[in-house]
Order: sequence, then C-alpha cells, then structure tokens
Amino acid sequence: MSDLNPADAAFADTLRARMPETAFRDLTPAYLEEPRGLFHGGEGLLVAPGSTEEVAEVVRQAQAARVGIVPYGGGTGLVGGQIRAEGPAPVILSLERMTAMRGIYPEENVAIAEAGVILSALQAAAEEADRLFPLSLASEGSARLGGVLATNAGGVNVLRYGNTRELCLGLEAVLPDGSVWHGLKRLRKDNTGYDLRGLLIGAEGTLGVITAASMRLFPRPARSGTALFAVESPAAALKLLALAGSRIGPGISAFELISGQGPRFLEETECPARCPLTPIPDWSVLIDLGMGAGDDPDAALTGLFEAALEAGLVSDGVIAQSEGQRAGLWQMREEIPEANRRIGAVSSHDISLPLSEIPAFLDRAGDAVRALGDFRINAFGHLGDGNLHYNIFPARGESRDAYADRRAEVAGTIYDLVDEMGGSFSAEHGIGRLKVGDLARYGDPAKLAAMRAIKAALDPAGIMNPGVMLAE
Amino acid sequence: MSDLNPADAAFADTLRARMPETAFRDLTPAYLEEPRGLFHGGEGLLVAPGSTEEVAEVVRQAQAARVGIVPYGGGTGLVGGQIRAEGPAPVILSLERMTAMRGIYPEENVAIAEAGVILSALQAAAEEADRLFPLSLASEGSARLGGVLATNAGGVNVLRYGNTRELCLGLEAVLPDGSVWHGLKRLRKDNTGYDLRGLLIGAEGTLGVITAASMRLFPRPARSGTALFAVESPAAALKLLALAGSRIGPGISAFELISGQGPRFLEETECPARCPLTPIPDWSVLIDLGMGAGDDPDAALTGLFEAALEAGLVSDGVIAQSEGQRAGLWQMREEIPEANRRIGAVSSHDISLPLSEIPAFLDRAGDAVRALGDFRINAFGHLGDGNLHYNIFPARGESRDAYADRRAEVAGTIYDLVDEMGGSFSAEHGIGRLKVGDLARYGDPAKLAAMRAIKAALDPAGIMNPGVMLAE
Repeated sequence: MSDLNPADAAFADTLRARMPETAFRDLTPAYLEEPRGLFHGGEGLLVAPGSTEEVAEVVRQAQAARVGIVPYGGGTGLVGGQIRAEGPAPVILSLERMTAMRGIYPEENVAIAEAGVILSALQAAAEEADRLFPLSLASEGSARLGGVLATNAGGVNVLRYGNTRELCLGLEAVLPDGSVWHGLKRLRKDNTGYDLRGLLIGAEGTLGVITAASMRLFPRPARSGTALFAVESPAAALKLLALAGSRIGPGISAFELISGQGPRFLEETECPARCPLTPIPDWSVLIDLGMGAGDDPDAALTGLFEAALEAGLVSDGVIAQSEGQRAGLWQMREEIPEANRRIGAVSSHDISLPLSEIPAFLDRAGDAVRALGDFRINAFGHLGDGNLHYNIFPARGESRDAYADRRAEVAGTIYDLVDEMGGSFSAEHGIGRLKVGDLARYGDPAKLAAMRAIKAALDPAGIMNPGVMLAE
Repeated sequence: MSDLNPADAAFADTLRARMPETAFRDLTPAYLEEPRGLFHGGEGLLVAPGSTEEVAEVVRQAQAARVGIVPYGGGTGLVGGQIRAEGPAPVILSLERMTAMRGIYPEENVAIAEAGVILSALQAAAEEADRLFPLSLASEGSARLGGVLATNAGGVNVLRYGNTRELCLGLEAVLPDGSVWHGLKRLRKDNTGYDLRGLLIGAEGTLGVITAASMRLFPRPARSGTALFAVESPAAALKLLALAGSRIGPGISAFELISGQGPRFLEETECPARCPLTPIPDWSVLIDLGMGAGDDPDAALTGLFEAALEAGLVSDGVIAQSEGQRAGLWQMREEIPEANRRIGAVSSHDISLPLSEIPAFLDRAGDAVRALGDFRINAFGHLGDGNLHYNIFPARGESRDAYADRRAEVAGTIYDLVDEMGGSFSAEHGIGRLKVGDLARYGDPAKLAAMRAIKAALDPAGIMNPGVMLAE
C-alpha cells in the first residue's frame, strides 16, 4: 500500500485558499458508485476546477502534500478506475465544469473540446457543423471526453474510424508534477518527439489529467444502408467480412456478429425488439454502410448478398428499405445487452481475438464452458474489430445467484483460452482497479517492467489515480 | 557529452564470443553516409544479428559495457538518426539479416514481418495475398520496416490510411535493458496497459530496438481514378477537399497540392514529365480515388468537377481516361522533387500546418521570403494531411552556393512562422540528430521534461542511439 496522505481538512483548507469557492462541491453518493456496483468509494475531497490552471493548482498541492488524485469524468467506466475504495481519502478531481468547446474547424475536420464535454454534446456540436464525430458508446449521454480518452474507449464505429486514440490529434494535460503540457495541435502529421499523446490516452489517469483534446471529425456520410444477413457459421461471417471489404471498400462502418441466443433472449425477457428472420438463425451479421452522395448503399448490399449467396456464405437476409426498418435492425442489436441484464450473466467478458481465431475460439470456449456445467452462452459483438462480448448465463429457469461461487472459475477458463489464442482479456474497457491482477498475470513481463519504470519516472510519488493499472 | 565507452576491440571480442561469425560484417562507407550528405559517421562496430535473441544479446553486452548502439535500417532517413558522427565509436546494429515475413493473414488484414524487411517487399507480399499495405514512400525500395516504424514515416497515403503508427497493431522489441517485449498481437482493440507500441514508434531508436511488427493490411481497391484540377487558390483547394470529402466519402486516397513553380521547374530542368493543363495553373490539385467494385471513380470525379466548377473553385481539369494517363499525372507529381534537386534548394522544409491556416501561411511565408531576397518558392505536398514541402530556391540563373550563408536565416524565418501558426517543423522526417536544436527551441517544455524522464527511466545509461532526439 502506498504511503500517501489523506485529503484531510488541512489539505482542503490549503486548496480553498488557492481556488474559487465554486470549485468545491458536495461529495454525493453518485461519485462513489459505478455502473455495475463492484466498487464503492470511501471518503474523498471533491474538487471541480473551472480551468486548466486550477487543475494544475490542485495537482501541485496534491503533489506537495502527497495526496492521491482520482480524476473523474462521467463515472461510466466499467472497471472501477473512477472509484478508490481503499487507502487514504483522495482528491476526487471532477472535470464536470470544464465543458467548453474551445473551437470547431469544419474545414479541417477538427474540434477542440475540454475534458468535461459530454460525448453526445461533442457529437451534436460536430453535427451542427455538418461533420461527424464517430465515437459512439452506450454511455455517450453521460461519458465525458476526458474519460473516453483516458480509457481509449471503443464502441461501434471502430472498424471504420479507429479507437479513441486514433481519433485524437493532440492533448492539453496536467502532468503529475503540476506542469501543463500544451499539446492541442490540429495536425495530422507531427514527428517531433515521443508520442506523449498516445501514452496518456489509455493510461486511465495514472500519468496525468487530460484537460482538453483536439479530436478528428469526418464528413457526414451522405447515404446509409443497413442489412441483416443470416450466415452459416462464424467462419462464414468472417468470409463475408472479407467479401464486403473487397466489394464495398471503406464504406463499411459496422459489422456486428449476433448469435441466435441474443434474439432468443429478447423473446424470453419480453424485450420489444425481434429478429426479422424466421426461424432465428444460429448466427447473423448486422452490416452498416455510410457512403458518399454518388453511391448506392442498397445496390451495394444487394450485390453483396447475391455474391455471398453464390459463395454459400449466407442463407437468408433483409436489407432495410426505410429509416424505420434500419432503426428496427439496430434496435434488435442494441436491446441484446438489456436482455442479457434481465437474464443475469454469471460472467461477462470483453475480449478480443485475432480475427481468424474467432471460429476456433467459439468452438473451444463453448466446449470448455459446457464442461463446466449447464450454462447458456451469448456471444456477440464487433466482429470487424475481433471484439466479442462473450457472456455466460445460467440454464433456463436457474438464477445467476446459484452460480456465484463458479464465477472465478468460469472467467479464468475463458481468459486462459483467450490468452493462449493470442487475444486480449480487456478489449475496450481497460484495467482500472478490477483487472490489475489479470494484467499482472497475462501481461508481458518486459512491458510491465517498462510500464512501472514510466510510472515511476512521471509520477514518483504515485499520486495519480493510485491502485489503477499497476498495484500500489 | 555522454560518458559512453567505445565499441573497441575488447568489446568486439566479447560479442564474437557470444554470436555467430555471420553476424559480423565489414563496416563499408555506405553505413556512414546518409542521403543528403549532412552527416558522416566515424568509426563503429557493425553487427547484423540474425534473430531477436541475438539483438537482445548485443543490447545486453552494450548495456554492460556502456557502449552506444545506433540501430540501422535501410539508411534512408533524412535527419541523421542513423549516423553517429561524434563521440565514442558505437555498435551499428543493422537489422538487414532479419528479413523474414513471419506470417500473413489475409482474412485478418494483418502481416507480421521482421524489422529488416524492405518496404517494397512488404507491399509485394501483401499484394500476393490480394491485400494492400498502403505505406508508400520515395525510398520504399531500400527503407526497412524497423526504420519506418522508428521514424513513424508518412508518405502519400496518410490521408486515407494514417501514418505508420496507425498501421501498426503490435511490436516485438528489445528494450534498453536487453529484455524482449513480445507484443506481436494481431488485435484491433487491446486496452491492457500503457501504449508502449505508440511510444517506441517514432522514438527513433532511443528507447529500444524494434525487431518485428504486426502491421495492418487493407482490401485492394477494386477501381481507381485520378484527376488533376486547376484551382483558383490554396483556399479553393481546401474547399475542394471538403467538397470531395462530403461527395465521395472515404474513397479519397491522395489529395496533393501542386504550385505552378513545380511544372515550370520540370520544363526548366528538362525533366520528361509535363503538366497537361495549358497554361500551367498557379495552383492545381492531384486527386486519387480507390473504390470498391460497385463504384465508378470516373463518374465521381466528373461529378466533383462539375460541382466545383459551379462553386467557382476550379477553372480547368483533366480526368485520366487510361492507366497511361493516370501514370502520367503521377509522374508529374513524382518528378517535382527531382526537378527541385536539379535547381538546387537553398533551404527545404518538411512542415505541417492546421489545414485552414495553409492559405494564410502561404501568403505570409511568401511575403517573408521575398523580404529576404530574390528567391523562388516551390510549395507542394500532401494538402489532405496539412503537410507541405516548402522549398526555397535561388533566382533564375543564380546558384544555391551563393546563398549558403543565408540558409539559417531563411529556415529560421519559416520555422518561426510555422510555430506561430500552430504548425510543426517536422511533419514526417522526425528529429534525428539534425533537428535536436529545433526541438529544444520549439518543443513544449512540459513535454520535453516528460520525454527526458521517460528516456532516463527506460535507458538510464543512455546507450540507445545517443544524440538523437534529445541532446546527450
């Protein structure tokens, strides 16, 4: 455990002497909870600076007093990176007041926003400028830009537009010594030194506090198309992905694998969405296209279906003929997590695999899970990215509570197999406090040693988000 | 200056006792020169390991003996990163024997190659698998993968496919302590720790030796199109870029700005290529499209031209109607650097700017250069990336030699203006040994301090490519 000091009354007084009163807010329970209820925060001093200079002041004082800092965005992270449950009370440094759009440059396809801007507000600002900010997540109505940067968030459009790291051109950040890095460049090419931008992105607040970012925008696709194709198998889905890539080129913005268990769960839990294909196929693929004004997404999808039918990859399909049909297909995809929640998972896994290993993984993982007991499996997700949500449920009529003591065994079985097959035990959610042990177990030793050296070099006192990523 | 020891006879004996004789090669003059003749290497011990384990052995022995290491790829870098002219003789660690393609996964759009693979060989291997490896540079026939990674090389396809960093999914590298990081993942999403991949890419060999990489491939565009449009001004070129983005979407693979000075230099130096537009326009744009089988690039370019004509952005244009015409347009673009060499530049600048600042930069830089004397300016480059090659030449009939003492003044004028306008003094070539002073001058102080801390943490003895990026 670290030898940090608590953010006590004396420390609060120190900060109050240097910061406007508006920066101090009540520590309501919302700041001490996270979406899945796995972590519960203890005491802490909530500070919401109004400017980068105020963030730097907090960091400098915390550095001087050896007080831990937990950077706080929208509170939507799933691995406990925003909650410190143990150790001396930290400063909870919320970016909620830093919500300025500092600039939007439609002709450059760039927006500069402060870290507290909510993701959906950034999407709306881009749309107002006739541009697309493509990062899209379930929690986009409350997640803040600083948090999605700190966790290198993924989402549904990674296949085409990349993870958050690829969407960021530059950062402004307060480093652990309280210095401010002014790196808000609007440049696509800039080879002038180490990639500090990429290092802070995904560091989950352990190397500094991101205060603003320069983000890439894109032209809004003029025409869209959506289809659901029944495929013979996950292997056929992969061949369909390759066929789509060569026929349609870069216009594919989503390629989602859906197992038959998803639509069956929708029926079982009485969620409103339904699969339009009858009978429900064992495997299907939801494809989304975003194309230029001169393109014809409907013709592209029809041509793809015909070629895939000839190649024996697909057996049935529907191409949305209206905005309503399109929304219906996406509703089915998006209600699957809700159906999962209603069933109640024994264990959920945000994993990625090399694309070509996915069919073998699904076979082997299925065998391994069945060997453990009478479980149901719902595997779905961003096939184009090799990212599966591989979730394991009780047999019909059983409750997840009956399996509480099996959870570690199930998860270990899945992660060991993922590791053996060259995959990742955390594709898009990160490490936080939840997966520190998994990282120590599955991480490369040379990389872990380099990470510890970098952490010690930039934050020798260990004040930045203590307990996240690396054990204290 | 560092307190490193020379790679002397005793050190050579130490290595010879541990490595096969095939790893030792004669240090021919080619290893001590670089393309522009700005740096000339002194003595050194040339070692060409045949495996990652042999690279690690060299690094461990150099670490133990405090001997500097200069990693050596194809020798094509333009900033002296591969040449140590001063200080104790280093080990020149050439990757030339590590040329294995370790695996190619067409269905995943991934290739794993060793660091010594020549860029054109990687392109060819991808093509053989019906895939595209899009990184394309003038020096691709001799540049090696490890070098383009270490320098985060750019090239003509960055607009669509990103810089080298964005093309890399994972690395294998020997870190300065001689440990091997096994990070050759084939994953699109993997949020398990700091981005060591992104940090080593662009670190120019100062944080370790890259020995192999997992690189992204892409579907080969089924149909291509190329056009040259005369534009009214650089501002009109930017509007045309936005129009093309919204009309054609992601199919634009190159968008090159050409000033009239380029084609005029082609005529003056009797290079074979010619501009097909008469009279030579003051500004023109070369556009390349790569699209799917169902698309029609010719129609897309025709539609773009008509819309741009209506908007008053273009005044003339030619759309290639054959592979021969297409090659001719690109030949004109690609012979401009040769014409520049024949004229002889006083000063050349690989700069980038925020896209919307480019017209104002060209105005202001032109005024500033004219105020310095009777120069000619050839500004051209990757407009879609904001990357200009801004090159300054003597008046007609004068020789560059007459301006040797003006070079620093000219370069300083340009770089000061670039810095003031939020640009970069090194868009794609990096820092090497040439621009260490520029980085110290124009770099952000907090970032520089973080860079020094990271360097000291990972390479405390300073053996990795001493003198590159940061002063010894």
